[in-house]
Amino acid sequence: MAAELSHPSIQDGWFREISDEHFPGQAFELRVEKILFHEKSQFQDILVFKSTDYGNVLVLDGVVQCTERDEFSYQELIAHVPMFAHPSPRKVLIIGGGDGGVLREVLKHEDVIEEVVLVEIDEYVINLSKQYFPEMASGFEHPKAKIVLMDGFQYLKDNQGKFDVIITDSSDPEGPAENFFQVDYFKLLRDSLVDDNGIVISQSSENIWLNLKKLKQIYHTVKEVFPMVKYCYTCTPSYTSGQLGLIVSSKNAALDVAVATRSWDQAKQNNLLRYYNSRLHAASFVLPNAAKVFLEDEN
Amino acid sequence: MAAELSHPSIQDGWFREISDEHFPGQAFELRVEKILFHEKSQFQDILVFKSTDYGNVLVLDGVVQCTERDEFSYQELIAHVPMFAHPSPRKVLIIGGGDGGVLREVLKHEDVIEEVVLVEIDEYVINLSKQYFPEMASGFEHPKAKIVLMDGFQYLKDNQGKFDVIITDSSDPEGPAENFFQVDYFKLLRDSLVDDNGIVISQSSENIWLNLKKLKQIYHTVKEVFPMVKYCYTCTPSYTSGQLGLIVSSKNAALDVAVATRSWDQAKQNNLLRYYNSRLHAASFVLPNAAKVFLEDEN
Repeated sequence: MAAELSHPSIQDGWFREISDEHFPGQAFELRVEKILFHEKSQFQDILVFKSTDYGNVLVLDGVVQCTERDEFSYQELIAHVPMFAHPSPRKVLIIGGGDGGVLREVLKHEDVIEEVVLVEIDEYVINLSKQYFPEMASGFEHPKAKIVLMDGFQYLKDNQGKFDVIITDSSDPEGPAENFFQVDYFKLLRDSLVDDNGIVISQSSENIWLNLKKLKQIYHTVKEVFPMVKYCYTCTPSYTSGQLGLIVSSKNAALDVAVATRSWDQAKQNNLLRYYNSRLHAASFVLPNAAKVFLEDEN
Repeated sequence: MAAELSHPSIQDGWFREISDEHFPGQAFELRVEKILFHEKSQFQDILVFKSTDYGNVLVLDGVVQCTERDEFSYQELIAHVPMFAHPSPRKVLIIGGGDGGVLREVLKHEDVIEEVVLVEIDEYVINLSKQYFPEMASGFEHPKAKIVLMDGFQYLKDNQGKFDVIITDSSDPEGPAENFFQVDYFKLLRDSLVDDNGIVISQSSENIWLNLKKLKQIYHTVKEVFPMVKYCYTCTPSYTSGQLGLIVSSKNAALDVAVATRSWDQAKQNNLLRYYNSRLHAASFVLPNAAKVFLEDEN
């Protein structure tokens, strides 16, 4: 009989997400039915457990990445905002996103896309997703999907000027994703776009309720590189403070990424989308007053 | 020396909000610096503590009512949505709201209001707010504010046809607020409005991520009474799942409560409002696709 699995973040049957550095004084808990997997890969501490009420849960370095109950909110927003804002997204690049959720969403546009490349550094995450999150991993075998196992930075250097939409679905800045929040990275992203209509969207690892100063810093870092930068957010209960911020950018200063330029008919929309619709696309860019004023202030 | 205060929801220096009945399998925690007050009033279990990162926190029957850090989001949305949707809100009634936060917000419209009546059953809550949440309690002595200590139901029966805006800022359906979610209550609210332009907004005690079926039930209960009913929500990290739903209704089927009919100039807006602005007013009514479809379905 295999030894009982355990994890330092799980005690008395509850997983506890806590970080003195990133969200001091608050914690979120999920009740654990069973630990399914725990191992340190070459890159990070990976935990998968079955929760009593949120389905299976993926945790990297102690931070919830997704739960089966609410993952659709994040995956749909980060994928469909750039896909529907772009008039013709034929070539799409996903950096990170090894769980497959963003890939699944991008592939819903299979009538317009030619190819989706997913570049993930940690093959462990892909294999775990296939095993424990089969609904999220449903796109890995799609004929238009190409999976590349390497560092996202290196891939961008080797593939400049190729993509219409680039989605950075990284984990947080600690660990393997630490370079994904620096100006050099955003320059590489910019230069990997086909043309000025290209759109880049990046997980910010922040939200307006946590470290607004740090969020502003990332936001203005992106502004150094792109003439058009906007902030939007997904409401996802299992993320800290219930939200996660996304930074959307383009080389075209006149392109309003807060507006969907394409749409599906009502039946297709209701059949394929649980979170996203055209009105929510726009609403996701509307911020509480003080956060808006602070974020957009140039000083 | 007074005995050390304690509370069953606080252990090892952390307050833990947990409910097998209402949000099974998830919990939210705040780190406690000091317990300031704990007593059972005639109506409910009242706890006030100073947290390390969310300021002072008010807890009724184990559920967070407000924290100094994020209370403005809830108070501003529930107050300013009806106040800005109504063309001329002169008489305003607040039922519950003993912490004073909604009163503070309504009084920001002092140029248009004649009177704001706050009806609270539990005087304990008002006195505690004055002591521990002075910024929220700042409106109690305002010349246009009238505080009535009685049951909201009874007050409505005695004051039909009097108000332009009515705000139900109750605690959750257990305890003293249990009748605030029934059809008879919404009939009383309807009949307490001056005319068809009147607007009622009620805390739903639910959100779309928790018990969507129960939320739909409340929503359709209100629809039995009012021809115009809409759902909006506030994003508030210290509320379960990071959101709380509000149900807005009017006797005027043609009145779109999702649109602000009045506004303040930019300077006044930025000076007085941290959460609300006209665009956020509209965005707060935009729901994730599946929740929208489910909630509006008549079956």
